[in-house]
Amino acid sequence: MTGPRYTDLVNALPANVPFVGPEEQERARGAPFRARLGANESLFGPSPKAVAAMREEAAQIWKYGDPTSHDLRVAVAAHHGVELGNVLIGEGIDGLLGNLVRLLIGPGDPVVTSEGAYPTFNYHVDGFGGELHKVRYKEDHEDPKRLFSKAKEIGAKLVYLANPDNPMGSWHSGETIAAALDQLPDGCLLLLDEAYVEFAPEGTAAPIEADDPRVIRMRTFSKAYGMAGARIGYAIGAEELIRSFDKIRNHFGMNRVAQAGALAALQDHGWLDYVCRKVDESRHEIARIASESGMAALPSATNFVAVDCGRDGAFATRILEALVKRGVFVRKPMVAPQDRCIRISCGRPEDMAVLAEALPEALAEVRE
Amino acid sequence: MTGPRYTDLVNALPANVPFVGPEEQERARGAPFRARLGANESLFGPSPKAVAAMREEAAQIWKYGDPTSHDLRVAVAAHHGVELGNVLIGEGIDGLLGNLVRLLIGPGDPVVTSEGAYPTFNYHVDGFGGELHKVRYKEDHEDPKRLFSKAKEIGAKLVYLANPDNPMGSWHSGETIAAALDQLPDGCLLLLDEAYVEFAPEGTAAPIEADDPRVIRMRTFSKAYGMAGARIGYAIGAEELIRSFDKIRNHFGMNRVAQAGALAALQDHGWLDYVCRKVDESRHEIARIASESGMAALPSATNFVAVDCGRDGAFATRILEALVKRGVFVRKPMVAPQDRCIRISCGRPEDMAVLAEALPEALAEVRE
Repeated sequence: MTGPRYTDLVNALPANVPFVGPEEQERARGAPFRARLGANESLFGPSPKAVAAMREEAAQIWKYGDPTSHDLRVAVAAHHGVELGNVLIGEGIDGLLGNLVRLLIGPGDPVVTSEGAYPTFNYHVDGFGGELHKVRYKEDHEDPKRLFSKAKEIGAKLVYLANPDNPMGSWHSGETIAAALDQLPDGCLLLLDEAYVEFAPEGTAAPIEADDPRVIRMRTFSKAYGMAGARIGYAIGAEELIRSFDKIRNHFGMNRVAQAGALAALQDHGWLDYVCRKVDESRHEIARIASESGMAALPSATNFVAVDCGRDGAFATRILEALVKRGVFVRKPMVAPQDRCIRISCGRPEDMAVLAEALPEALAEVRE
Repeated sequence: MTGPRYTDLVNALPANVPFVGPEEQERARGAPFRARLGANESLFGPSPKAVAAMREEAAQIWKYGDPTSHDLRVAVAAHHGVELGNVLIGEGIDGLLGNLVRLLIGPGDPVVTSEGAYPTFNYHVDGFGGELHKVRYKEDHEDPKRLFSKAKEIGAKLVYLANPDNPMGSWHSGETIAAALDQLPDGCLLLLDEAYVEFAPEGTAAPIEADDPRVIRMRTFSKAYGMAGARIGYAIGAEELIRSFDKIRNHFGMNRVAQAGALAALQDHGWLDYVCRKVDESRHEIARIASESGMAALPSATNFVAVDCGRDGAFATRILEALVKRGVFVRKPMVAPQDRCIRISCGRPEDMAVLAEALPEALAEVRE
């Protein structure tokens, strides 16, 4: 009796995947984290109106969600001043990434990203057999020129660029991105991940028409809207590309209550402004705390701050481990030279107080 | 400036997919349905304890859900008396189906199902380029012998069998399924879809060990648990197979609030019993209403009833359209001879009253 016969592609994939959630770490350490600052969740929470909408809708959970996410799509289209046909709702950017890769990338198809950029994109490209080509960051920024030049060199079908960037928090002006598009080779799609753009300075969102066939941009309710657990993201792109997702997506995949919450969240502009102000305060506070320990916070256009620990990756990893031991959940960049940093999510004053207490202790322990 | 370059597989997929939700039909007809009896949702709703758990968790939506769904997985494993490693939580059976097909099926790989069985399975097989072979129902039942014999004939990697069946509501004893496994060819996996099994007579769930490498079974919170909009299903299978999903699944894809709701729902045995009693009452009521219009309800082990309209598929389609026009959302089997039926979900007395009013009118209109 033999087991199932996997595809060759699946047989070639690594058995272990590097996604470990904080809950698993908490179970391993036998105690909850004191400050959950590792996943760039919004510790300021979702709009109270979104919570009220979800509570209201909870009893309706017996119904499937609308497979076209019509009402939310209408609201997103209005929010961005684009047509309904330019908008796709999906199970977070992660879900949208997976489907986009599936649409374009088969075994051996070339794809470009930055070394050390968002690992879930790489996971999906590997998962469909694509061939990943990585270019280096330039001074802690993803580098559109280098990305697009590599794309041209290898005939890439897809190139990934996050603006602002995760894990470094760096950003380009939208004009810079739009201008660089001239260098994007014909037939190569730019996936512009704008998960953090609501936190960024005015002008960071690239001025690109929704119908531009060269670009698909992705946004999420997981970050500024404080709804990571809802799994709602959206893509804006040319109608033909948006429609192509209907060939493969899980049509009844959207949670009904989450859709209601996202709709309410999108309309609560006051809450978004409040969160962005609080995030900015916390960025300053993280910088202050870091500097008191002799570390330098990098400029950030996101709801997290990359803190330069001042030595190499091994040193930063020891700091991270010492923080985790003290109940502070943080993560860090994996690739040199960015791996000299740890990445700390913004939080409330009580979270910052835990950080302020733990960071000097962690540093002292590591220096022993 | 050309658009993106899709894979050959995607280019070959049909542009239109046959998934139309009731909300889209409501928008088209300009009015809500009076009775939502088309998607086999549970009109008796979720456990009040599940609703309470979701309302309680709503404010925590800023956190990603646990990517391992640990607590829910532990509860499901205990519920079935299996090991934690035998259980996988996923985005409804639809999401699990998609990932299972992706693990096993590449272009040209042979797959077996029944003609007229669950279309979303076919959608995923087509989506990964598999070659679908369909066998006929036998007296309105999916036929394990015919399925497994076809699987042997063509060297199938995967065979689909729902027990109970959707859309006919028919079922086999679990012993029949287990006994038929001897005929399953080596290296062929049986996907046993038990979405409706909670409604079925004792002994319908097949007595198959969780570690049996020949079978993966799937269950859902969408039907008896009344949480279709939550998008939570689970698979039980051999550890190696369950673990293989980690190579490709969207690890942070589960809604946090839905996980909390499902955990509470699973523990409320009283509610499940109540729903199953109500469903049984409604099955009898649908049979009574059908018989008053001279139609025959087929036996059902699910929360819906296939009603034989007594003529061909075109006639049944006209009845369905006349019902929809009167605000009764129902669906129907698509393949002869099962297409002589319409499929009516069970509902509350008020839903049955709408059906009782609309069905004779619909029949009169069609007979004019």
